[in-house]
Amino acid sequence: METQPEIDKSSVTSLIEHWSQLNLEDRKEYFNQLLRTDAEELFLNLKAPYQYELLSELSPLEKRSWIRLLAPDDSADLFQLFPLEQRQEALLLLDSQTRHEVIGLLAYAEDDAGGLMNPRYIRLRPEMTVEEAIRYIRAQARNPIEIIYYAYVLDFEQKLKGVVSFRDLFLAPPDRVIQTIMKTDLIFLRDNVDQEEVSRQFSRYDLLALPVLDQNDHMKGIVTVDDIVSVVEEEATEDIQKLGGTQALDAPYLKISFIDMIKKRGVWLTILFVGELFTASAMSYFEYEISKAVVLTLFIPLIISSGGNSGSQASSLIIRALALREVGLKDWWRVLIREVFTGLSLGALLGFIGMLRVVFWPIKDPVYLQHYVVIAITVSLSLVGVVLWGSLMGAMLPFLLRRVGVDPATASAPAVATLVDVTGLIIYFSVASVVLGGTLL
Amino acid sequence: METQPEIDKSSVTSLIEHWSQLNLEDRKEYFNQLLRTDAEELFLNLKAPYQYELLSELSPLEKRSWIRLLAPDDSADLFQLFPLEQRQEALLLLDSQTRHEVIGLLAYAEDDAGGLMNPRYIRLRPEMTVEEAIRYIRAQARNPIEIIYYAYVLDFEQKLKGVVSFRDLFLAPPDRVIQTIMKTDLIFLRDNVDQEEVSRQFSRYDLLALPVLDQNDHMKGIVTVDDIVSVVEEEATEDIQKLGGTQALDAPYLKISFIDMIKKRGVWLTILFVGELFTASAMSYFEYEISKAVVLTLFIPLIISSGGNSGSQASSLIIRALALREVGLKDWWRVLIREVFTGLSLGALLGFIGMLRVVFWPIKDPVYLQHYVVIAITVSLSLVGVVLWGSLMGAMLPFLLRRVGVDPATASAPAVATLVDVTGLIIYFSVASVVLGGTLL
Repeated sequence: METQPEIDKSSVTSLIEHWSQLNLEDRKEYFNQLLRTDAEELFLNLKAPYQYELLSELSPLEKRSWIRLLAPDDSADLFQLFPLEQRQEALLLLDSQTRHEVIGLLAYAEDDAGGLMNPRYIRLRPEMTVEEAIRYIRAQARNPIEIIYYAYVLDFEQKLKGVVSFRDLFLAPPDRVIQTIMKTDLIFLRDNVDQEEVSRQFSRYDLLALPVLDQNDHMKGIVTVDDIVSVVEEEATEDIQKLGGTQALDAPYLKISFIDMIKKRGVWLTILFVGELFTASAMSYFEYEISKAVVLTLFIPLIISSGGNSGSQASSLIIRALALREVGLKDWWRVLIREVFTGLSLGALLGFIGMLRVVFWPIKDPVYLQHYVVIAITVSLSLVGVVLWGSLMGAMLPFLLRRVGVDPATASAPAVATLVDVTGLIIYFSVASVVLGGTLL
Repeated sequence: METQPEIDKSSVTSLIEHWSQLNLEDRKEYFNQLLRTDAEELFLNLKAPYQYELLSELSPLEKRSWIRLLAPDDSADLFQLFPLEQRQEALLLLDSQTRHEVIGLLAYAEDDAGGLMNPRYIRLRPEMTVEEAIRYIRAQARNPIEIIYYAYVLDFEQKLKGVVSFRDLFLAPPDRVIQTIMKTDLIFLRDNVDQEEVSRQFSRYDLLALPVLDQNDHMKGIVTVDDIVSVVEEEATEDIQKLGGTQALDAPYLKISFIDMIKKRGVWLTILFVGELFTASAMSYFEYEISKAVVLTLFIPLIISSGGNSGSQASSLIIRALALREVGLKDWWRVLIREVFTGLSLGALLGFIGMLRVVFWPIKDPVYLQHYVVIAITVSLSLVGVVLWGSLMGAMLPFLLRRVGVDPATASAPAVATLVDVTGLIIYFSVASVVLGGTLL
């Protein structure tokens, strides 16, 4: 350790960098030929699925030393990945205290606060002095505790009474009693809140760790902010995938099996397709108009897609605003009013461009040339109606879904577009019957 | 402070809870009538824009005590919001050391590592003993330093030589020299990397803080993970809004002005609309086929939307995978191969359902009834082609955009749908000319 450090050779970084470019077989080989210390650094910095990958073919005894490297919460994440029939056996590889803790963690759903938490944290008693507390922390530091910036003050019933930051400990005179310097204005998590709520609390309070309490106010562990960064990313990934009209993949794109990929995408694609089948019914309902004025069909894709696009804009804005709690259910009417004006303005904009298109870029068709003024009016008015309708549907659907307890992100761009397609056709042909009645129709 | 703490009255939480439900005017009033200590707790826990809101009407002297409550990085975030002409004056409210640090921070782009960092951190010298270090840290803790789990070891040139965690300090014998216990295998950020990269580093290494170095390896500050949670959320919000086919709003939905909302949505809606205008041109190119077989038009929305939906699925999956670095540019051909098989399978699925629709749910039209077998074949084959094409376009467009230096999230669901609409029509009518040539056409 006496060597002169070189900043630019950051070896963990380069280990991971190198490892991440290999395929599975080469990864195992690379891992096996590393120095033990390097291999350990690499292992500790990998996420659970990759750790599992590296361990999968090792003998139980070889597994033991790797698994024992991990903190209990990371260990629980890894055990979660073991098939149930192997999990019991693998748990025996842990020392009995850790095993006890890991089994406790495994009982929580993976994405609850309880599943994210670390059961090891620094406990103090209210009646300790600062000096005793510092000595006690120094002793506790010998265990692989996930030591962090705060120490938690518990009473004899394991109920949380206060929090002391290390800074407060350092600052206070050694003979002060912990009770008199601890913060009693506590922010905490219940063990059964889900990880979306956990990450919202962290983003709200900018804290490094939050204590987790069960329903009886007993302290069960802490969730640290470093685990939350990946949670926030995961949640965003799920939302983005749903917004694109897929079920959440729950695995990296290149890792998921072909069959799972087809299932996750096929289900929604089929649902949307069945919905879209109604466009054919809607159109057959207007077959008389179509056969009399085939020229109307030329603008069908233009009109329905404008409705779909404005709907997809509105739904993605509202879904995200709901997820970040920027708007709540009670704000639906404020959103509605905004979207009425937004939809009308955007519709007028597209209607105007559409009119220019019809007038200045004529299609060489005798019927068209003869009637282009009324066609222009039909197309423009339909665009205003369709864009308004799309914006309203896109904005209201997420509220409706949240209201009935469904994830608002289900109102994906494709889902909104499909809904708006059928109604867009009805709007278009209805406008056409009114405007063109007596001339073309 | 000697009162018995009550867990369920978590006053910061309830202060913020209450505050967040008020409108702007009521917020100011609520803030003014709070006890000073409560008001400070509330203020410290708000994000910069809300802090700015509360301060905006105070006199300079009143502002001073609030601004001085903040750590330099939070202070810089707040100053960023002041109009330029007021910023100089407001900076004078700070003590000269903090002012110096805040001006240094303001020089960085807000979303670089440099703009996120805190210039105050705990510095140690390599030749100190552990005992000296602990004494020194206790002295430093008197300043409002954003003390955290690590202390950084700098040489006389301010170059970073190593990192010691508090746990290491607590564990080591008091007479050991820092140099011999520090970690020299350093993970660090350059001051000019953007916040997306910063959050990637945090999510990769699960650390509480990372040191920031300039191009000459001088240590400039630290970025702490609690600031990163909001960054990750912001980045995801931008991506989700772009995916929905809007420009990133950069403001909560209910806060953005109506004009800005119209601009952010109108620009893309217009671009997409102009793109979609080509569908009318494409269709007029096939006017002969349409007039001979009007029945073909009934399936247009069904076919183009299936292409759009499969494209939107593929693009959202790939955009997210690129953002999380699950796939890199070099993986484009692996993705291409996956999408060929996925597109063919999904296309076959929809083609099969489409065929059932045509055969078992006939439209009452003499031409249709006579030719429904060939129509079913035309619709099915077109669906396979369009879904395959949509999947490929959706998956490849994000790669292409990244390659030419544009944010892949620009390949929004609506943008991909628009591209696929025009080509989908061409595929449909081309298949129709071949299959129906001699019978319907």
